[in-house]
Amino acid sequence: MSDRTGVGIVGAGAISAQYLRTLTRAPDLDVRFVADLDTERARARAAEFDVPGSGTLDALLADDAVRIVVNLTVPRAHVDVALTALAAGRHVWNEKPLALDRAGGRAVLDAARSAGLRVATAPDTVLGPGFQRALRLVRSGAIGTPLSALAQVQNPGPERWHPDPAFLYGAGAGPLLDLGPYYLTALVHLFGPVTRVQAVAARSREERVIGSGPKAGERFPVTVATQVSALYAFAGGESAQALFSFDSPLRRQRLEVTGTDASVVVGDPNMFDPVPEVHHADGSVLRTAPIRTRIGRGVGVVELARAIRAGEPERASGELAYHVLDVMLATLETATSGKVIDIHSTCERPALFPSTIREGEVD
Amino acid sequence: MSDRTGVGIVGAGAISAQYLRTLTRAPDLDVRFVADLDTERARARAAEFDVPGSGTLDALLADDAVRIVVNLTVPRAHVDVALTALAAGRHVWNEKPLALDRAGGRAVLDAARSAGLRVATAPDTVLGPGFQRALRLVRSGAIGTPLSALAQVQNPGPERWHPDPAFLYGAGAGPLLDLGPYYLTALVHLFGPVTRVQAVAARSREERVIGSGPKAGERFPVTVATQVSALYAFAGGESAQALFSFDSPLRRQRLEVTGTDASVVVGDPNMFDPVPEVHHADGSVLRTAPIRTRIGRGVGVVELARAIRAGEPERASGELAYHVLDVMLATLETATSGKVIDIHSTCERPALFPSTIREGEVD
Amino acid sequence: MSDRTGVGIVGAGAISAQYLRTLTRAPDLDVRFVADLDTERARARAAEFDVPGSGTLDALLADDAVRIVVNLTVPRAHVDVALTALAAGRHVWNEKPLALDRAGGRAVLDAARSAGLRVATAPDTVLGPGFQRALRLVRSGAIGTPLSALAQVQNPGPERWHPDPAFLYGAGAGPLLDLGPYYLTALVHLFGPVTRVQAVAARSREERVIGSGPKAGERFPVTVATQVSALYAFAGGESAQALFSFDSPLRRQRLEVTGTDASVVVGDPNMFDPVPEVHHADGSVLRTAPIRTRIGRGVGVVELARAIRAGEPERASGELAYHVLDVMLATLETATSGKVIDIHSTCERPALFPSTIREGEVD
Amino acid sequence: MSDRTGVGIVGAGAISAQYLRTLTRAPDLDVRFVADLDTERARARAAEFDVPGSGTLDALLADDAVRIVVNLTVPRAHVDVALTALAAGRHVWNEKPLALDRAGGRAVLDAARSAGLRVATAPDTVLGPGFQRALRLVRSGAIGTPLSALAQVQNPGPERWHPDPAFLYGAGAGPLLDLGPYYLTALVHLFGPVTRVQAVAARSREERVIGSGPKAGERFPVTVATQVSALYAFAGGESAQALFSFDSPLRRQRLEVTGTDASVVVGDPNMFDPVPEVHHADGSVLRTAPIRTRIGRGVGVVELARAIRAGEPERASGELAYHVLDVMLATLETATSGKVIDIHSTCERPALFPSTIREGEVD
Repeated sequence: MSDRTGVGIVGAGAISAQYLRTLTRAPDLDVRFVADLDTERARARAAEFDVPGSGTLDALLADDAVRIVVNLTVPRAHVDVALTALAAGRHVWNEKPLALDRAGGRAVLDAARSAGLRVATAPDTVLGPGFQRALRLVRSGAIGTPLSALAQVQNPGPERWHPDPAFLYGAGAGPLLDLGPYYLTALVHLFGPVTRVQAVAARSREERVIGSGPKAGERFPVTVATQVSALYAFAGGESAQALFSFDSPLRRQRLEVTGTDASVVVGDPNMFDPVPEVHHADGSVLRTAPIRTRIGRGVGVVELARAIRAGEPERASGELAYHVLDVMLATLETATSGKVIDIHSTCERPALFPSTIREGEVD
Repeated sequence: MSDRTGVGIVGAGAISAQYLRTLTRAPDLDVRFVADLDTERARARAAEFDVPGSGTLDALLADDAVRIVVNLTVPRAHVDVALTALAAGRHVWNEKPLALDRAGGRAVLDAARSAGLRVATAPDTVLGPGFQRALRLVRSGAIGTPLSALAQVQNPGPERWHPDPAFLYGAGAGPLLDLGPYYLTALVHLFGPVTRVQAVAARSREERVIGSGPKAGERFPVTVATQVSALYAFAGGESAQALFSFDSPLRRQRLEVTGTDASVVVGDPNMFDPVPEVHHADGSVLRTAPIRTRIGRGVGVVELARAIRAGEPERASGELAYHVLDVMLATLETATSGKVIDIHSTCERPALFPSTIREGEVD
Repeated sequence: MSDRTGVGIVGAGAISAQYLRTLTRAPDLDVRFVADLDTERARARAAEFDVPGSGTLDALLADDAVRIVVNLTVPRAHVDVALTALAAGRHVWNEKPLALDRAGGRAVLDAARSAGLRVATAPDTVLGPGFQRALRLVRSGAIGTPLSALAQVQNPGPERWHPDPAFLYGAGAGPLLDLGPYYLTALVHLFGPVTRVQAVAARSREERVIGSGPKAGERFPVTVATQVSALYAFAGGESAQALFSFDSPLRRQRLEVTGTDASVVVGDPNMFDPVPEVHHADGSVLRTAPIRTRIGRGVGVVELARAIRAGEPERASGELAYHVLDVMLATLETATSGKVIDIHSTCERPALFPSTIREGEVD
Repeated sequence: MSDRTGVGIVGAGAISAQYLRTLTRAPDLDVRFVADLDTERARARAAEFDVPGSGTLDALLADDAVRIVVNLTVPRAHVDVALTALAAGRHVWNEKPLALDRAGGRAVLDAARSAGLRVATAPDTVLGPGFQRALRLVRSGAIGTPLSALAQVQNPGPERWHPDPAFLYGAGAGPLLDLGPYYLTALVHLFGPVTRVQAVAARSREERVIGSGPKAGERFPVTVATQVSALYAFAGGESAQALFSFDSPLRRQRLEVTGTDASVVVGDPNMFDPVPEVHHADGSVLRTAPIRTRIGRGVGVVELARAIRAGEPERASGELAYHVLDVMLATLETATSGKVIDIHSTCERPALFPSTIREGEVD
């Protein structure tokens, strides 16, 4: 018992089920509590996963055995909940985004540093076996010296399938802020921090139409850029070209990294199991074996708990999340101003994830 | 006889064979002369294609029946040969590039305008049945309102197969200036002229190594950017993201256009017969039928001759070529300065190419 | 209540969860009971899906409101359980196979006919939106006159992932009997009954090795053919070529149908949502839109209940299942004897499945 | 001079250009004569390739320096021309087929044997770098123990593009006899001779319509099977499943070989440069490097000349061609009779082709 890390969940919405599936299976975690403003919703979710406690955030914080608060609230509540948990002496895992603006993100990191606590943030797909296999290939020299990357996420927009998509076209969202974290976090794992950005952005339509569900046919306003093309420069001299679009009938989720000897096509960094391909300069191609994994959302919490116990830095660090937030906001700013922006935030490039966190599941 | 347009070729190098194959089959052209500094080389090429005359450029210009001079000389001679032909009262077709710098290109266009003559310039792959099919799809509304394009040409560099590739890494070349014209010309056909550009560029290696042929293993210096990522804005509000690379082990030649309703994947704009695909927002995909064509390099000369006879503008106009040259040079300038550049040159968006130029061959 | 059809499940193994997910969501079914030899296992499964009753088969049959017995027992128990249910005046749905031999299958069909009851049998993937879309294309003339089909299911064998695979290489199994029903049932929907078969078969290894799980490394004997190539002729003059293999490192699941004007690539008939493609003779290809469906195993039970209420023939009929069993056994017999076999069993070609069984879910 | 083998061509039709392109570039051949019933056609072809002599077959045979007669006449003349050349003491290379029936083929082989001369026969695509790379992979153990093969050649029929296709649907042709040699010859290289065959065949239409050219729209009769499905057993216990079709709107040219450890997808055996792929049982796939080759039709003549000089057996032997003819005829016979046929002809499995025949061109 004493060697299991106590965890409490805040926010019993849809994504909490995905987290709980992972966290309740982790042998070194002890999931103790589900909190929600709607305590009945919290109770139901706790029952579904045999979690003993449920109720309010205050009640959660009253349980001294909870060491990590997993913050799955709506984005605009992320900062407040994180600050509350830190003030109560708990480490925090945040769903993405860390915050909606730089000030909020900075406040959370500062509070954690002052208190000697950790703040870590989604996405944790970069810890999955697919991306980690690609990362191992790159770091082991399989592509020679890395030079550049191409990131493309394109689709016709979530209103085709999401029953209530308006928020995905409002402040804090759009394709860049919603999907960019998966790609930019992966790029930082590959190349280290971004140093410079330039971009163009467009909003193709003033309104969009809900495509399915009970509200099908309803119109809603679009207040953010729905296609963003960006060029990033990295500290080591590498560059990346990125496209984030909700304006593309053609669907694509791609990340690829090019080096002097070969390119690695990573696949979709929003998945835990994309299968890397290595394209060699002689034209030969190796598609690596399919990945069977049960690793899913929440693996970053497991990693955070282990890092705390081991006294080592966590991989999905708040510094990294803040840097990615800063880069995304700068991307929008440069698209408006037309001026190249130098990025001043920075972070460590995370270490490879040891493949032993769950026996037989990380390839 | 009188209704066939007389044509003379200058430059009997490798590419002249490709041109002559097309031009000597065109029923409304009369190929009369092949000129070259090396008159023996001119004679052999003329004999190969049953062209009656061969010799020097002066001798070519002495044949009054030659109305169009097809300028296939090396790039640095393009401007001088074009000016000479114009001064002699002949229309000019240039292999790409129109010129190595803006001043040279402008001089040629000004001379033509003063003399009431035409200057047209490669590439003419945009007049091939593949790209024209894609263009018809776009103009007929198959993708809704066009919004943006993606252009990617990536390969590990021509030194892998070219026996003498050093010039492709020197002034006036590199992936942007060598391959960019195919993509940028196609984009201007699709969207009209470019109004703004920003870019990043890199040179991955100081030297490269010849990979095949008698000089295999020899090193040569690289003096140009070998990977260029650019963002283009167009007069109608469309945008394009482009990648030109000799640094990519992964090979790719792609042009795709996205509209509100669908995307058209054009394929390789450096070919006459890429097969367009239409990707609809519902996820369905139509791959159009394969294209069987004998149309090849030189079709632009045929079109120029017809345009002259009909008193209509030619599609591969010198204005378009100058605009593309201006855009490419600005792309390199913005990559150096880090400052967005507004493009001041412009041109007309060419009309669709009627599919009747060669019975049964343009689909 | 009175317009919902009562259903009882026999066999609470893994597949019962898949069935219950579908059946408990169907508005016109009333799932009343889960039976199993292990009544504790039955109780747990019933609780998981809020099914009121659980216990023995006898207890199930004591509930007069149960009109359809869903027989999910192990294959060797299929006939006994089906005969018991029929003797008790209940209609029967069987998991595949109907029986292990012709005599058993015939006994079940005869008992049903005598009693005026229905017997229907998996697979019901043919009722899914993917295959039905392909079937509608074929019947609407999209491929012209159907001529032939190609069926290929190839993989390296289930011992790579199945923790206890020995039974899949013993009597009543192997690639033909395990996977053949999906392909042959689909072919009968397309072309009607088979009239003639010839085949070759091979057993590549005497033993195979468990590849994962607690028994990894254990050897087990192989007593059936592990690769079967067969040629089928159909009543209407069509033909099919089929390959069923557990001997192929290359994985493939394919069904395609060729007509005079086009071919339809159906995709994997073991799935509910394969996306059909139409390949036209001019070389153009239409990939139809992706399918989003929650339809899964058990839809055939829903269809059976509706057919009973409507007094119409069910599509997954026992006659069809018997015919497919007869064809598979003949396939093995002809492979042994080297003599072409004429098939004497027959069945009706099922009607198209109306796309309204579940609002918005069948495309 | 004395170490170059003299070659004479009989038949100056379209295919002779392909042969001459290869033969006139081969450093150890001396192409001396082109013969044709139409001596003007012979003269023109000879001139095109700088071949010194042209005229009748008799004139060709009067040139003692011609050691190999390359028989490119129409199929029904193959036997007579071959016998004439053999009677005149010359070795013979035949375009496929060796003969139209077993008696003709046997007569040619017997005449050669009596005279101590060689008879070799197309196809020679199996000597190209693509298939040879696949063959080296198989023989080096890359797929483990070979078990089976899949051969599929499907298209909508040559009348879509061939201006005069009637003969391709008459005696001695159809998809089996026209395209089967490429696939069956490759299978014999892989597995050795065929021992047993069974098949079904169909003729989808009584008449077909010319699709292009001056006769477009004309109907012509079909007198052969236009789709043949066959199952072959080989001497070593391997099996193959094959489909030969002119009835398929979907186009496919595929040959793949499956072993205990992996499958090799060979690609189209009718090409010299298909790129093999290795599919491993763990799901990983290696696509080998693209092949750049100038090797084309005629390489078998080069190989024959070398084999004669070296006193070694030629790879494209007449025995192999006779065996393939026998297998194809048996395929049609079994499809008619419904009885499995045992094959009594046999041949040696050819050796790997050394990759040095043309420096740098065979990979």
